[in-house]
Amino acid sequence: MPKSFADRLTALVEERRSQVCLGLDPDPAQLSAAGTSDSSASPAERAADAIAADCRRLIASAGGACVAVKPQLACFERLGAPGWAALAEVCGAAGEAGLLVVADGKRGDVPVSAAAYAQALVGVTSTPWGDVPGLGVDAFTVNPLLGVDALEPLVAAAEASGAGVFALVRTSNPGAADVEDLETAEGPVHERLAGIVDGLAGRLLGECGLSGMGAVVGTTAPEHIARLRALMPRSVFLMPGVGAQGGRPELLGAAFAAGPSSAIVAASRGIAAADDPAAAAEKLREEVWRVATE
Amino acid sequence: MPKSFADRLTALVEERRSQVCLGLDPDPAQLSAAGTSDSSASPAERAADAIAADCRRLIASAGGACVAVKPQLACFERLGAPGWAALAEVCGAAGEAGLLVVADGKRGDVPVSAAAYAQALVGVTSTPWGDVPGLGVDAFTVNPLLGVDALEPLVAAAEASGAGVFALVRTSNPGAADVEDLETAEGPVHERLAGIVDGLAGRLLGECGLSGMGAVVGTTAPEHIARLRALMPRSVFLMPGVGAQGGRPELLGAAFAAGPSSAIVAASRGIAAADDPAAAAEKLREEVWRVATE
Repeated sequence: MPKSFADRLTALVEERRSQVCLGLDPDPAQLSAAGTSDSSASPAERAADAIAADCRRLIASAGGACVAVKPQLACFERLGAPGWAALAEVCGAAGEAGLLVVADGKRGDVPVSAAAYAQALVGVTSTPWGDVPGLGVDAFTVNPLLGVDALEPLVAAAEASGAGVFALVRTSNPGAADVEDLETAEGPVHERLAGIVDGLAGRLLGECGLSGMGAVVGTTAPEHIARLRALMPRSVFLMPGVGAQGGRPELLGAAFAAGPSSAIVAASRGIAAADDPAAAAEKLREEVWRVATE
Repeated sequence: MPKSFADRLTALVEERRSQVCLGLDPDPAQLSAAGTSDSSASPAERAADAIAADCRRLIASAGGACVAVKPQLACFERLGAPGWAALAEVCGAAGEAGLLVVADGKRGDVPVSAAAYAQALVGVTSTPWGDVPGLGVDAFTVNPLLGVDALEPLVAAAEASGAGVFALVRTSNPGAADVEDLETAEGPVHERLAGIVDGLAGRLLGECGLSGMGAVVGTTAPEHIARLRALMPRSVFLMPGVGAQGGRPELLGAAFAAGPSSAIVAASRGIAAADDPAAAAEKLREEVWRVATE
């Protein structure tokens, strides 16, 4: 069996003294056309090359303060096939830089289609002409609205490949209240989602005691964190929303009750759009490390 | 403003006397390597060419009995960039055959990322080298777990392009009960999702009175259909699950209470895997048409 995501993350957190996950949300509209070469290529190809190069630069400058990158699949998909090729390139570049890759696609579908997403992310697709490998990422985000049977093929594929799975539990956007916070007789929907995550946590358990069956828990509603940690005592949390969305690192202490590698904190624009991305990543690393090890 | 999805669908339903949506879930493992040509291409490229050709054949044989196709994005994504190129090709081929294209990706993310998905599906991405068009589909599926603000950019893009949006309300898999059926003080979660859909339905309203702000309502739990139709009196329903998953056309009458074009019934394996796909599609067309116009 491959080494589990939870164990690989734990080793990297200890080595780098970091829990920062670098969000990669490249926007071709923000790029400069200066200095680009192959003018025979299509706009999509040129833009895809440019966002891949931009992500590589960001990984080279800020990656050292991080343990993971989180490419936002939407940002690559909007460039079509060249965008998907750029995504694969960026995932490879992050791996070469020693970073874990968390593909942020929030996929979720009925079991037969969920199995196809699993192939795309961490599996292999058999064809009469040979196997086609998927992205080969270290972890990915999923949407649990369709229930446990729809998560099952994704969790099974993660198990086989040593990957992690982050299911949406309580997201960082204001609209999260509309559905995720609806009250049921046994607590709000997001606590029921937490129950589903915890029910699967034994499947992706590392030797470190943490589980790669993780949860997306936004940093913008810190009042939920302690309760969600109690409901998911073994799960790694992926925590978006610091910086641009208003989440504050100093309020995340409860997430780390399961240990310094029990949560990773994702920042995208806060690092990428900073005048000095390396300094911004290092500042966040220090802030989160302090909170995580207090 | 472009003609709305609801109006285009209504015209096509009347013209073809059909509500059938042909699911395109190509599986390269099921294809034959016989007769393929370019042996210098990679396995992914050869498989992508083969699934595109397979989808074209299916559209040519069975498309005449249908009003729409529903490519499952996962099935294309698992072949990487060549798979995405095949998806674009298949969408184009379906459009040439006079079929509406419903991209089935069940996307959903925080607003900034939802806007990027909207660009990928029905919008345009600006780059310094020129605009990159998205898939240009007629409609797409979305996951509403993240709430109204996360749907907003997708609905706005649909509005601008005359597209339809199908939000998951009650899916066709057994696990749908886990979250979608959770009871809240004001009804099960799927009824709350229906309320969100209805709240947005004024946005994508056609002159026909139906709204392209639609809902995915599985055919495998027909006991919910009448109630969901009452909660979403203007929305077009996209109804998967007939055939392989066990849904029966004769139980879908309540979905058509808003008119013969107020629902489309999706079938994938039931048509694609039939000995005679054209006959299977025609049989389903007749069955659904009877139920829809009774």
